[in-house]
Amino acid sequence: MASQVELALQGVITNEMIAAAKADFVTPEYVRDMVAEGKVVIPNNLGRASRSVGIGKGLRTKVNASIGTSTDIADIAMEIEKAKVAQACGADSLMELSVGGDIPRIRREILGAVELPVGTVPLYQAFAESIKKYGSPVDMPVEMLFDVIEEQCADGISFMAIHCGINRMTVERLRKQGYRYGGLVSKGGAYMVAWMLHNDRENPLFEQFDRVADILKKYDCVLSLGNGFRAGAIHDSSDRCQIQELVINCELAEEGRRMGCQMMVEGPGHIPIDEIEANIIIQKRMSNEAPFYVLGPITTDVAPGYDHITSAIGASLSSAYGADFICYVTPSEHLALPDVNDVKEGVMAARIAAHVGDMIKLKDRGLDREMSLARRGLDWKRQFELAITGDRPAEIRRSRMPENDDSCTMCGEFCATRIVTKYFEADIERGEKKLGAEAR
Amino acid sequence: MASQVELALQGVITNEMIAAAKADFVTPEYVRDMVAEGKVVIPNNLGRASRSVGIGKGLRTKVNASIGTSTDIADIAMEIEKAKVAQACGADSLMELSVGGDIPRIRREILGAVELPVGTVPLYQAFAESIKKYGSPVDMPVEMLFDVIEEQCADGISFMAIHCGINRMTVERLRKQGYRYGGLVSKGGAYMVAWMLHNDRENPLFEQFDRVADILKKYDCVLSLGNGFRAGAIHDSSDRCQIQELVINCELAEEGRRMGCQMMVEGPGHIPIDEIEANIIIQKRMSNEAPFYVLGPITTDVAPGYDHITSAIGASLSSAYGADFICYVTPSEHLALPDVNDVKEGVMAARIAAHVGDMIKLKDRGLDREMSLARRGLDWKRQFELAITGDRPAEIRRSRMPENDDSCTMCGEFCATRIVTKYFEADIERGEKKLGAEAR
Repeated sequence: MASQVELALQGVITNEMIAAAKADFVTPEYVRDMVAEGKVVIPNNLGRASRSVGIGKGLRTKVNASIGTSTDIADIAMEIEKAKVAQACGADSLMELSVGGDIPRIRREILGAVELPVGTVPLYQAFAESIKKYGSPVDMPVEMLFDVIEEQCADGISFMAIHCGINRMTVERLRKQGYRYGGLVSKGGAYMVAWMLHNDRENPLFEQFDRVADILKKYDCVLSLGNGFRAGAIHDSSDRCQIQELVINCELAEEGRRMGCQMMVEGPGHIPIDEIEANIIIQKRMSNEAPFYVLGPITTDVAPGYDHITSAIGASLSSAYGADFICYVTPSEHLALPDVNDVKEGVMAARIAAHVGDMIKLKDRGLDREMSLARRGLDWKRQFELAITGDRPAEIRRSRMPENDDSCTMCGEFCATRIVTKYFEADIERGEKKLGAEAR
Repeated sequence: MASQVELALQGVITNEMIAAAKADFVTPEYVRDMVAEGKVVIPNNLGRASRSVGIGKGLRTKVNASIGTSTDIADIAMEIEKAKVAQACGADSLMELSVGGDIPRIRREILGAVELPVGTVPLYQAFAESIKKYGSPVDMPVEMLFDVIEEQCADGISFMAIHCGINRMTVERLRKQGYRYGGLVSKGGAYMVAWMLHNDRENPLFEQFDRVADILKKYDCVLSLGNGFRAGAIHDSSDRCQIQELVINCELAEEGRRMGCQMMVEGPGHIPIDEIEANIIIQKRMSNEAPFYVLGPITTDVAPGYDHITSAIGASLSSAYGADFICYVTPSEHLALPDVNDVKEGVMAARIAAHVGDMIKLKDRGLDREMSLARRGLDWKRQFELAITGDRPAEIRRSRMPENDDSCTMCGEFCATRIVTKYFEADIERGEKKLGAEAR
């Protein structure tokens, strides 16, 4: 079977393109052309039906929620609940990142529990299996890596973060700069670097990149070039080894596309807000506008417990400047495995940030206009319909109901809207700022 | 007694300047010079001792928490608890914005309960009294306004948001543009406009601006020029009437300084993130760098229930671009009067945003560097000391403790830091990225 890229290059519009176009209010032709140019991907797997989500140029910024066990906490029921909550809260995709327990079983149960496209980091399973079999991740045989990638594709995974851009050249940059303040924080990246240094060998995922891309293309799975050297500290952001890996990843994105594989590039990480635009500009330039998948980014190191907020700040700017896909960060980042509530808060914060960015990137502001009219009209039902934040607003209002049905307890009788609008009715009548304007 | 501005102009360094300088790691001479130029203010009241907090150029971005009753919910004990929680969570100032219950009593109890400088919006009390006495806010006699301002100054208020910039010219701009999508959302602004239109009179706070500034100067209270026309909707941001009011406010800021009064200017509001920089540039230009006090700003209309996050996004950019003072926004904004937990979440989100901005504006990143080194070293005690987020991080970690003391349940055995750092010890040794680097 042909991949989305190959079909797009033949001029074919697939069902996935049609569904992705519809969800984002663009034409199927537009999606096809962008897929052909490698500027949009649709995470997919020929063996599993899932929601078709377009990621890339001209489309709404999408949000990923990552779940998965650790060796300390491996509770399948909880992971399934997290997956369902993430979907219910409006995540566009899931990454199943388990490293503890029966990883293949967890993956298969998650795949059965949601309709979202599901992604993985195959290195996690490979290193976990190596530890089980050989007592250490650095003893992992190379073939185990490819076996795991194939196995995960066969299970129905739609996108994989694979650390192909880590190589001897990037490790050398890390050495020359005297390592890092925050060290290496990508699990896949750290383990791969340890493997390379212990074995004094090149990264097989780089050396045999064609083989990786071939497997993923066979299933139409998106190859997301992992950011193994993403900064895990503000003082490491945009350092030479991060940018070196980005150079390689952008080169591989082009190579993968040429092979007919759907390709995406991953980005930071921890970063001060004045470096976000530069990171996106160079990624877009060097990859010829491959979709950019960023981890927030997190914009300060010193606010653990609130990293859904530090990353929402970064994500809003990423989205505004052109990032296409946001990985959520939860309040328990840097501290513990997220629980169900953390997943909910993480998805909400990331979705808000993605929208704040889309208001700039896509001038997507119709919903905001409708909300302001509903507010001016004190139409609470309509406000709750328009909110992108689920039941929360209605719950807050219900918990503290006002005496006057139309105002709220914030101002009570002193509702600004109620007292003043009547003086301007003739002015409103003359212009476009009327109640009932269309949302889009 | 002379005000801070007058003393600074005479070359005097006051105790307030010394304390404010110390808290921000600058010299007292610097603070004096900036106060003399009107670029820094220190909310103060000659009749009440409070913490000396410098707001303005070259200083850390400060955070205000607003509390206060409404006519629906007027519980003094709860307001005192909110005030104390805000102070404990690291707010730099409080605004007591009650419009319900016994307003003078609430104000006095709050003033006794905290050491922070406390601000008010005197229009609220004036209109509330007018409703009680005359049945309507539009029947308020002019002298009542000045009486309330004097009374609040005499009680020990350190800064007041007063809507002097609303005048017939700004109201005319509002009419000509056909009103607004979101209407008027500033309580003080809406009531004053209603008063003006009902009585067909100019705003007395504009007409008798000198009298307002004279009263505040007498107590050394900061006059914060209220943003009565701030946009309450994305589609109204930076519209002509908002900018018209800003023009007038910047003019009044200069006039007030000339009279020896400490002056500050207030800003948006609701605003898309690509307009924040422009708002700050023009405020700074037109006011000759008067301290800028912004309400977040809120960066989308459609996320009620999460406006601490939508405003943290705006506040981080405001702070980065040069805003000096951030008013927090709580999760219940647009929905209900905040409760104690809302106050806590609001202060945390605003403080994080202020810091994210200060990392750019002041290059204040020493704490972030220390945190990254503590993370690399898996030094949890130090991480909790360095966090600006109180007890929350330790609570999250404690709630899900790992088997290995040094890692966390997020990665468990797969702790990236633990596996890889050892390979780079020689590289670290050569460079500056060592554990134990100084925080500042």
